[in-house]
Amino acid sequence: MAKEITPRSENYSQWYLDIVNKAGLAENSAVRGSMVIKPYGFSIWEKIQQSLDKRFKDTGHVNAYFPLFIPKSFLSKEADHVDGFAKECAVVTHHRLMNNPDGQGVVVDPTSKLEEELIVRPTSETIIWNSYRDWIKSYRDLPLLINQWANVVRWEMRTRPFLRTSEFLWQEGHTAHSTKEEALAEAKLMHDVYADFAETEMAMPVIKGYKTESERFAGALDTYTIEALMQDGKALQSGTSHFLGQNFAKAFDVKFLNDKNKEEFVWATSWGVSTRLVGALIMTHSDDEGLVLPPKLAPIHVVIVPIPKPDENLINKANEMAEILRSKGITVKIDDDPKKRVGFKFAEYEMKGVPVRIGLGNRDLEKGMMEVARRDTKEKQLMPLDSLGESIPALLDDIQENLLQKAMDFRTEHTSIANDLNEFQHILDTKGGFIYAHWDGSSETEAKIKELTKASIRCVTFDAKDEPGKCILSGKPSQRRVLFAKAY
Amino acid sequence: MAKEITPRSENYSQWYLDIVNKAGLAENSAVRGSMVIKPYGFSIWEKIQQSLDKRFKDTGHVNAYFPLFIPKSFLSKEADHVDGFAKECAVVTHHRLMNNPDGQGVVVDPTSKLEEELIVRPTSETIIWNSYRDWIKSYRDLPLLINQWANVVRWEMRTRPFLRTSEFLWQEGHTAHSTKEEALAEAKLMHDVYADFAETEMAMPVIKGYKTESERFAGALDTYTIEALMQDGKALQSGTSHFLGQNFAKAFDVKFLNDKNKEEFVWATSWGVSTRLVGALIMTHSDDEGLVLPPKLAPIHVVIVPIPKPDENLINKANEMAEILRSKGITVKIDDDPKKRVGFKFAEYEMKGVPVRIGLGNRDLEKGMMEVARRDTKEKQLMPLDSLGESIPALLDDIQENLLQKAMDFRTEHTSIANDLNEFQHILDTKGGFIYAHWDGSSETEAKIKELTKASIRCVTFDAKDEPGKCILSGKPSQRRVLFAKAY
Repeated sequence: MAKEITPRSENYSQWYLDIVNKAGLAENSAVRGSMVIKPYGFSIWEKIQQSLDKRFKDTGHVNAYFPLFIPKSFLSKEADHVDGFAKECAVVTHHRLMNNPDGQGVVVDPTSKLEEELIVRPTSETIIWNSYRDWIKSYRDLPLLINQWANVVRWEMRTRPFLRTSEFLWQEGHTAHSTKEEALAEAKLMHDVYADFAETEMAMPVIKGYKTESERFAGALDTYTIEALMQDGKALQSGTSHFLGQNFAKAFDVKFLNDKNKEEFVWATSWGVSTRLVGALIMTHSDDEGLVLPPKLAPIHVVIVPIPKPDENLINKANEMAEILRSKGITVKIDDDPKKRVGFKFAEYEMKGVPVRIGLGNRDLEKGMMEVARRDTKEKQLMPLDSLGESIPALLDDIQENLLQKAMDFRTEHTSIANDLNEFQHILDTKGGFIYAHWDGSSETEAKIKELTKASIRCVTFDAKDEPGKCILSGKPSQRRVLFAKAY
Repeated sequence: MAKEITPRSENYSQWYLDIVNKAGLAENSAVRGSMVIKPYGFSIWEKIQQSLDKRFKDTGHVNAYFPLFIPKSFLSKEADHVDGFAKECAVVTHHRLMNNPDGQGVVVDPTSKLEEELIVRPTSETIIWNSYRDWIKSYRDLPLLINQWANVVRWEMRTRPFLRTSEFLWQEGHTAHSTKEEALAEAKLMHDVYADFAETEMAMPVIKGYKTESERFAGALDTYTIEALMQDGKALQSGTSHFLGQNFAKAFDVKFLNDKNKEEFVWATSWGVSTRLVGALIMTHSDDEGLVLPPKLAPIHVVIVPIPKPDENLINKANEMAEILRSKGITVKIDDDPKKRVGFKFAEYEMKGVPVRIGLGNRDLEKGMMEVARRDTKEKQLMPLDSLGESIPALLDDIQENLLQKAMDFRTEHTSIANDLNEFQHILDTKGGFIYAHWDGSSETEAKIKELTKASIRCVTFDAKDEPGKCILSGKPSQRRVLFAKAY
């Protein structure tokens, strides 16, 4: 089974698609650009959702649900937003089908044409701020801290499962505040929540910074991003948090009376992460044998496989062991299917990235031992059975830490400094990865560098030190280096 | 605040809308027929979701996600299904907008017309069975027990929040089996799961039975339903589970090799409940003062209100109490907002249906007492503070039980037997409710009774005794009574 995966060194894109396919995560559907998220892939998304939802609620947010459809006219109310989102989108024009007069199937009933077309939401700022106008009258109604879990559609020409699909699942936070400072603090707080989630749960280190003007969300005054580095040396934008200023409040006329009884426009943020995170997870940790998952997001932590064949003694023991582990919050699967060979089972759980596999044979059992294999390093060791309640949780913690450390090391090795365009191009051609380089601050230079090298500015990092230098393209003065990379 | 609700006796429909509005559950949106589910309403749906999702997983189901869009041709593959669902639906015909040549806003780009129109899913049998064709090859791949939580759209002319909206949230289970018996057992199992959920969590008694042919799901061989009785004497279909036979397998050519290596079509079920359950919950328990919620689905179980004004002593005590209650799994809110009057707070939590309110005054506190008000009966009593860790959980259990009992009593009082059409009409005109009556088994008679009386056959109950009689309309012989009611 494992042999069917294309090695990363041979074809990275195909390796990714092989893992998505063979680990049973997702597949293409009959609808161009829309994927089916299969049960195992969806269970990873459920773990991501649960963990994020708790973080959102712990920071005072509540969930709500706004309509899927947005009246076409809403999209053009915010001048920048319309350019970003009112382009490739799904447009509903009719509301009825009828039997085909020629007797074959159904056709659109021309009399059911809508007066105003509806757009399937590409993002919900407009429909939400249209509601907020009625919800916000006074400073007492603020802040409004709302999130929604939803599907959105952005018509994409080139799609890849999880990374870029026409329909995807995400969460979008939309908050309203009485002051600029409070909105800025919210946008930064959620940026921190995303970064902490990525590192703590996904074991995926991220670089935090803000986007340049040309890479900002359409309608935002500032976009904060977390950027992760994939194993092919390309960056993946993994979550963004936007300070929207008063743009949407002005577009939808959302005002409030402040505590001095004066009318003001409301300040806004929005922030989102999507099923793209599943793609990020795959590409951060997996190897040529299949998926590798950090224990905190693994749907199954431990699989117990009786060797060579399940007998009653082994199954009883496995159940005992599972009970101990489950009492520690560990998810355990016992695979006692007599129809599959042990070798097949081992390869399957390797493919699916189950962090720990316990092989249970009668001979080891007599000695009070079990064979424990960890998915991340593929090391196997015999461990005493009677302490599994302590050793397995410790091993899972160790795997989680090891994956983060490994990803950090990879990033460190693939982060460079370039002082001129030749050096910059050379790094991209040889090892790729993140490159810190000077830039003169103009959108023209940024676009030109991207055109020449395919690398874009991922962000201006928050922790960048002042370090005067010269732009790698224009030679004009620059105050600090910014972060470049080729990106998904 | 409470005074603003229209009494049920005056205008039941308006009473319902008042509660939805004033308890902050939902509101109409800018998109005709689509509602905004507000945070408090959504938190009730979240409780419903969590509880159902656990039941689904406990019975072996997993979640997945299938595309929002369905190619138009899919809808006409199953002959009955097309009549039921390929009518009033949202049709996507284009995938791009462009700036209006006249400079005003955006218009549909006519060059972006899709070759085949896409339908926003009204239900997902077709797109899912199109995937199942590739997933199912052998009896070893079966059963497939999959659920999805999703939004669906059915274009509705007359909408009411939660009860009937063009877009709604639901779950849809779609299972595949190797035998008819197994599929039938699955359809019945999920029917039982729904009934148990309704009674145990929603405190809403339901009648279980199967639908007549004319009320079946489009494409089903049998539809099992749970029917609840609302306070206006009308029935609400609250959940359905369908035995689909091999209809969708045949339409989408889904075959498997059985254990004798012979090819067969796969057997199917589907089953769903929706945000309509929130409407059912509102109408089952609420009163003229507002929402009444069963504790098991209440987002907040207990609110503690310091009286008359919060001082440090009271707030400290409230926090201590909350800690004790939270350690028992109870959700507690402390309302120490100094800007709102106590009377306003009391009315607000009554409106929102918080099951238990604890008033905490310094005078009671000195005596070691607290004032406890239960929302269901509106009784108040002084209770000793030091035993709240036992008394409040017991009170919540009592409220849950009382609400179920009250709803059962209401249903008993509003369930009648009619032996002829006059009696039948008289019952409908006076007290409404469920009516058991004889029917000759023909769709014509069923339609005629509905036309004459507006009452429809809700179901043929599973526990109906054999009791020969005569059809109330045709006088033809009937073997047992069936359940009629006017319905939502």
